[in-house]
Amino acid sequence: MAKKFATRKENYSQWYNDIVINADLAEYSAVRGCMVIKPYGYSIWEEMQRVLDKKFKDTGHSNAYFPLFIPKSFFNKEADHVEGFAKECAVVTHYRLKESEDGKDLVADENARLEEELIVRPTSETIIWDTYRNWVQSYRDLPILVNQWANVVRWEMRTRLFLRTAEFLWQEGHTAHATKEEALEETKTMLNVYTDFVENWMAIPVIQGTKSPNERFAGAVETYCIEALMQDARALQAGTSHFLGQNFAKAFDVKYLSKDNKREYVWATSWGVSTRLMGALIMAHSDDNGLVIPPKLAPIQVVIVPIYKNEEQFNRVSEVANRIKKEMQDQDIAVKYDNRDTQKPGFKFSEWEYKGVPVRLAIGPRDLDNQTVEVARRDTLEKEAYQLADITNKVKHLLESVQSNLYQKALDFRNENTHTADTWEEFKDVVNNKGGFVYAHWDGTAETEQAIKEETKATIRALPLDDKKEEGKCIYTGKPSERRVIFAKAY
Amino acid sequence: MAKKFATRKENYSQWYNDIVINADLAEYSAVRGCMVIKPYGYSIWEEMQRVLDKKFKDTGHSNAYFPLFIPKSFFNKEADHVEGFAKECAVVTHYRLKESEDGKDLVADENARLEEELIVRPTSETIIWDTYRNWVQSYRDLPILVNQWANVVRWEMRTRLFLRTAEFLWQEGHTAHATKEEALEETKTMLNVYTDFVENWMAIPVIQGTKSPNERFAGAVETYCIEALMQDARALQAGTSHFLGQNFAKAFDVKYLSKDNKREYVWATSWGVSTRLMGALIMAHSDDNGLVIPPKLAPIQVVIVPIYKNEEQFNRVSEVANRIKKEMQDQDIAVKYDNRDTQKPGFKFSEWEYKGVPVRLAIGPRDLDNQTVEVARRDTLEKEAYQLADITNKVKHLLESVQSNLYQKALDFRNENTHTADTWEEFKDVVNNKGGFVYAHWDGTAETEQAIKEETKATIRALPLDDKKEEGKCIYTGKPSERRVIFAKAY
Repeated sequence: MAKKFATRKENYSQWYNDIVINADLAEYSAVRGCMVIKPYGYSIWEEMQRVLDKKFKDTGHSNAYFPLFIPKSFFNKEADHVEGFAKECAVVTHYRLKESEDGKDLVADENARLEEELIVRPTSETIIWDTYRNWVQSYRDLPILVNQWANVVRWEMRTRLFLRTAEFLWQEGHTAHATKEEALEETKTMLNVYTDFVENWMAIPVIQGTKSPNERFAGAVETYCIEALMQDARALQAGTSHFLGQNFAKAFDVKYLSKDNKREYVWATSWGVSTRLMGALIMAHSDDNGLVIPPKLAPIQVVIVPIYKNEEQFNRVSEVANRIKKEMQDQDIAVKYDNRDTQKPGFKFSEWEYKGVPVRLAIGPRDLDNQTVEVARRDTLEKEAYQLADITNKVKHLLESVQSNLYQKALDFRNENTHTADTWEEFKDVVNNKGGFVYAHWDGTAETEQAIKEETKATIRALPLDDKKEEGKCIYTGKPSERRVIFAKAY
Repeated sequence: MAKKFATRKENYSQWYNDIVINADLAEYSAVRGCMVIKPYGYSIWEEMQRVLDKKFKDTGHSNAYFPLFIPKSFFNKEADHVEGFAKECAVVTHYRLKESEDGKDLVADENARLEEELIVRPTSETIIWDTYRNWVQSYRDLPILVNQWANVVRWEMRTRLFLRTAEFLWQEGHTAHATKEEALEETKTMLNVYTDFVENWMAIPVIQGTKSPNERFAGAVETYCIEALMQDARALQAGTSHFLGQNFAKAFDVKYLSKDNKREYVWATSWGVSTRLMGALIMAHSDDNGLVIPPKLAPIQVVIVPIYKNEEQFNRVSEVANRIKKEMQDQDIAVKYDNRDTQKPGFKFSEWEYKGVPVRLAIGPRDLDNQTVEVARRDTLEKEAYQLADITNKVKHLLESVQSNLYQKALDFRNENTHTADTWEEFKDVVNNKGGFVYAHWDGTAETEQAIKEETKATIRALPLDDKKEEGKCIYTGKPSERRVIFAKAY
């Protein structure tokens, strides 16, 4: 950790990349745009999965698994869907390699060309609704509440680790319902699950809203979203929940026999979050000293570093350290005793600081004499000497305090970076010079949205769910508007 | 569950398929050879994952994630490896679809042809060792103990649900070590982890052994395996652990600086089990009444079915059922109270029986009067009236007894179906008329192995680890042999 890394001010984008690489979260692979998620990064993702998976199950969902490949023709069945995904998909055309004629290379075997090309799933609505057709006969078979943890591929041209990669990991929920009301309720339930997760585990405040038609999921009737603000005052979409109406039921002919004996199309939702959340986690909280992980998602919540000059001291310190470790494990605190003899304490301090461990304990012979421990919290970098007695409970409270402080800091930041704009000049000024969320009036047309995007790079992030009606004039066209929407430059 | 399904005697293969489909475990999808794992089937896989993942972590491994795609040229770097996998892989050639000229179809866009084709991973040694090159500088960076949960694709021509599908789910461990001894020890450690899991969770006895050169993993120096016997007396390979020597380190130039300052190639292992284990689970224990799941892997261990004629009775029964349910949940028993009012008790009985739930409780008004519960165990189909008092503890013991009984039954079956053969005639007779494991002498050559396979379809399943030296003559060539190996027809 002796290297000097970029600060946010110097180069925000480099700062982000430095953290991803040097905190051992992920790296690019030999395959264009595809990343390797390293063990430490993956262990954070596992924490996220664990929490989300429980929330999905607690709301009545089960996991299942659908094929990686989707027949090309399936995409053509839902017009908007194909429009949204055909331009960025990996196409499988052959199922065998053979030696080239000169024997030096491998080539796709033309005798093993697929009759119909297969697409590596960019999302699974089509293959899943093709499957649901056979699962649904009557209203008794509904609802279907299924989630899938999977890898998906969207051939992005410009990639960034976690934020935008050709392959990424995600979960995609796909539910089927007898009525529109029930499907809409499911859409909102899952939006609330995501909100709860991002705010109370990731410690990032979000705004709930719906997407403008331009930003809607390809095939959805309505896309609900949660939007978060990063430290460079750009917005990041942290999760989406789609009300799909009967679009996919119609495309794949999925009908059910209702209680009053009528054949009706089924109503659908889909919802997902991805490894992109790792990017949000990093950007929301980290500082110029490296990664900062909220305690509730930290694979290592507490690290204990021994300070010693000889074996006798090491043994004395280790005895206490191991006792604390045991106590903390019994209280479900994820604790690591870093007893490596290959590294000095200073190195360990900066390594764990850079890797974002929320709380660090240092114990040396003098601490033992005083019956104290040096406790450092990662969020504020403050250090304090704690009495050894009852240390586990105190650290438990400290972890809670770090968690809530991170949320409050992010909320304060968002509040400071939330603006309103009433004229086009004001809007451009805010977007170009301040960034952040901008509440402004919009005439409701796709043309205006597009024009604003082209001139400022700001897009409509959300039509907030909790907005108040307010008469006003569109900042761009001056036409009447009934509500403010939220603009921002976004990831 | 009113339908009549095939029995094992009538049609073993149909019996297997019926269970997979009708117990809601999996089904074929619209994509050739690819399956959909349904929620109930997936929940069993999740139990397997949970147990295995903990065992991997307890033995020091971390999870990570590597790309789905592998550059074609990587396969060419390890000669045996390409030979083993090139003939059955999905090849990605394009990264975009476009409308066909008549506008009616989608076609792969020739302007978006990849410079180098990508292979959908059939296994990840190549991409992982390409990554490890950058992770390893000195002996301090070793060992690397990493596992990945992932989907892989091998283009099988004849597929069977769970047993052989084009896409399947698995875990693949890939470790890197400074010494040969350490890598060999890791190989055996993981073989023991698999053995422990299959025997003590899946309740299937296995034989540990190494593979003959013909059956070895493409790229391995030595393949260790565990072999199980199914109810049709065919063998099934339940897991493999490969000692890869320095083959992949040499192919991808992965060297480390040793303690005495020498550049040395790194030693490797890889090991994996897959959704194929679902097939083993089904075939090892199920009977003509359907699936039988060992309690330690059952997503539902106990189902409670209420017997009632009116609402008053339903309420009385439900009160007790819910109390039992709560008690059992507190004891970590996975219990379901099936209070559906759309189905009769008889239907529920056969449904849960067919789905393999280990223990069923039935409670009616008369039971309440007698303070008893009717308890049925799935393995023996025996029913018994239990006193209500202390029911949770009794059921807990019953679950343990079902678990050990299933193992014992499978072990007895294997013992009854394990034979020795000393002559070619005897060998053919056993293989053709009895099946099972056949211990026989073999001259150690690939030619003989191949000839035996062609004449009898039996292959060498394993050179058992615990075998005794025994002088003898090869059943096929009469040449001298020092040990018996195990032959069987296999899945």
